[in-house]
Amino acid sequence: MMALKKIGSQSMLFPSGAWIRGRGTVVGKKEGSGPLGSCFDIVLQDDMYGEKSWEKAESKMLKDAMMKAVQRAGLEKENIDVMLSGDLLNQLMSSSFMARDMHIPFLGLYGACSTMTESLVLGSILIDGGFAENVLAGASSHFCTAERQFRLPVEHGNQRPPSAQWTATAAGAVVISGQPPGPGIPRIRAEAATIGRVIDAGIKDANQMGAAMAPAAVDTLLNHLQDTGRGIDYYDLVVSGDLGFIGREIVMDLLVDAGLPSAKVRERYDDCGTMLYTKDQDVHSGGSGCGCSASVFAGHLLQRMEQGELKKVLLMSTGAMLSVISPLQGESIPGIAHAISLEVE
Amino acid sequence: MMALKKIGSQSMLFPSGAWIRGRGTVVGKKEGSGPLGSCFDIVLQDDMYGEKSWEKAESKMLKDAMMKAVQRAGLEKENIDVMLSGDLLNQLMSSSFMARDMHIPFLGLYGACSTMTESLVLGSILIDGGFAENVLAGASSHFCTAERQFRLPVEHGNQRPPSAQWTATAAGAVVISGQPPGPGIPRIRAEAATIGRVIDAGIKDANQMGAAMAPAAVDTLLNHLQDTGRGIDYYDLVVSGDLGFIGREIVMDLLVDAGLPSAKVRERYDDCGTMLYTKDQDVHSGGSGCGCSASVFAGHLLQRMEQGELKKVLLMSTGAMLSVISPLQGESIPGIAHAISLEVE
Repeated sequence: MMALKKIGSQSMLFPSGAWIRGRGTVVGKKEGSGPLGSCFDIVLQDDMYGEKSWEKAESKMLKDAMMKAVQRAGLEKENIDVMLSGDLLNQLMSSSFMARDMHIPFLGLYGACSTMTESLVLGSILIDGGFAENVLAGASSHFCTAERQFRLPVEHGNQRPPSAQWTATAAGAVVISGQPPGPGIPRIRAEAATIGRVIDAGIKDANQMGAAMAPAAVDTLLNHLQDTGRGIDYYDLVVSGDLGFIGREIVMDLLVDAGLPSAKVRERYDDCGTMLYTKDQDVHSGGSGCGCSASVFAGHLLQRMEQGELKKVLLMSTGAMLSVISPLQGESIPGIAHAISLEVE
Repeated sequence: MMALKKIGSQSMLFPSGAWIRGRGTVVGKKEGSGPLGSCFDIVLQDDMYGEKSWEKAESKMLKDAMMKAVQRAGLEKENIDVMLSGDLLNQLMSSSFMARDMHIPFLGLYGACSTMTESLVLGSILIDGGFAENVLAGASSHFCTAERQFRLPVEHGNQRPPSAQWTATAAGAVVISGQPPGPGIPRIRAEAATIGRVIDAGIKDANQMGAAMAPAAVDTLLNHLQDTGRGIDYYDLVVSGDLGFIGREIVMDLLVDAGLPSAKVRERYDDCGTMLYTKDQDVHSGGSGCGCSASVFAGHLLQRMEQGELKKVLLMSTGAMLSVISPLQGESIPGIAHAISLEVE
């Protein structure tokens, strides 16, 4: 019997060491023109990325983000034991074809837009438990693949309500390793995680994703803080995945309702979906998609941690687990959020 | 730094103990009329299961299989730390809504029909690594939900070629626990696993799934045997997920080509897709779907292990990672297979 690393009801610790050794990001033209544009490794000039379909473009973005992470870690593809990833496409089309090309043992994940954190949590478990020496964890999304699958043909030019969010054309990946990086390189490690429950607030409007997912983010965060005995100010930044401007406000209200101090919540909490674009980029309530938190985390947040601006970060990607047909069958939108705590040693 | 449990290039050991404590199965009417019918906990008389849609019926089947596993383990729902599952539906509709109703921390997986083994491998990792005390691992499929999503409207009554397989209406689940079962109960443990790579043999015919997945099964099995230093006769039974009659023959040919002794391969290897139905049930090349290996494993194989007929079993569910649109974009069908070794102590 192992020493138990489970803490509280939904959380776990990674005491043995799971270090972020490399990171890679590829984003579309619009994301490259946003406030974080300079953080990303590759900014596309054409969101087709030289491919014949948007789906193939997304798959190539994910592959290139993975390869960039491997390269930055100072490793070769052959050093990676397991690759974990997912995307929004039916049957994980982007990830599956990426995995075929990469030829690395592969575990496909689906957590809607929570997938980047699901990848990071399971990757850290594989490393901390000694089941692998190096893993790749990633996720991707593409505005055009998501729009045509979940909503309407892109060419239709449907008018979007103010609460709608913009699916990020973005891929992010990291190498998690059982060996810390060499001397002189900042040591960032995954330190704890909380696996989320599916929470359904009864919202049926697929243009209100932020509101649909916010209760799941709050549930996961409150359980994380309770399980670990921490306050929100333990973290320099608690960042949800893609709740956007509306969902972020709802989370702050709910956290204050739950008794967290309002000033600290406003100071410490933010959302990747509000960081990726400026409001004048016509994204309405902000960014969404697996690639939103994947690219903001791997491109921007890890960079800030490397530069010493952030020491302790809780990443909490958020997913709306609706299917294309579930609303047609009268179902509301179930939300989920997983959390992973990263710290600079 | 943990003691490394990784062995060889793709495999890992579970030395700390990950015991199968409970199992549950729910199958459709056709599966209940097959040769394994008496093994299953619940056999539906109507594949709608009292619901208003096939998707809701599949979700309910998965939930009931999960609950049956919890009950057989002598546990309560509240004792389960994490639930892992997946299905074939876009956005994991069956699993997502099951997880909403169960209200247990949830990790969604997509490995096409390899999902049951993916669930078991990740569940065993969570337990063996001490990250959880009890987990639920499951998977489901339903003939009618799969047909209408992947192929044609069920009412259309499309003629199927002889190589086509029949998606099982079935759900299977197990409880994996860090504590062995009490005295007098057979102790079955997950002992090792191999995570598969995506292998694409270039097949483009979506009615040739067995042939498309067979090379992935062979790749995973050969790597498993090499990583563990075992011969195929180490196992009483090596069982693939849903290759069906055609895929099973291909696997046997390829294994013999790779130098394994023909008599031992024929004696030790079988496929769940050839076990679930009789040939006169009009299933052509046999069963398929996540629920095929999930129900044959949780209903039939674990029962045989409990009864002492099998001591060492390698379960190797197989998945075809095509999407609904990838063949339309000219892609061939990528296959994947993961393996998990179970033994009676």
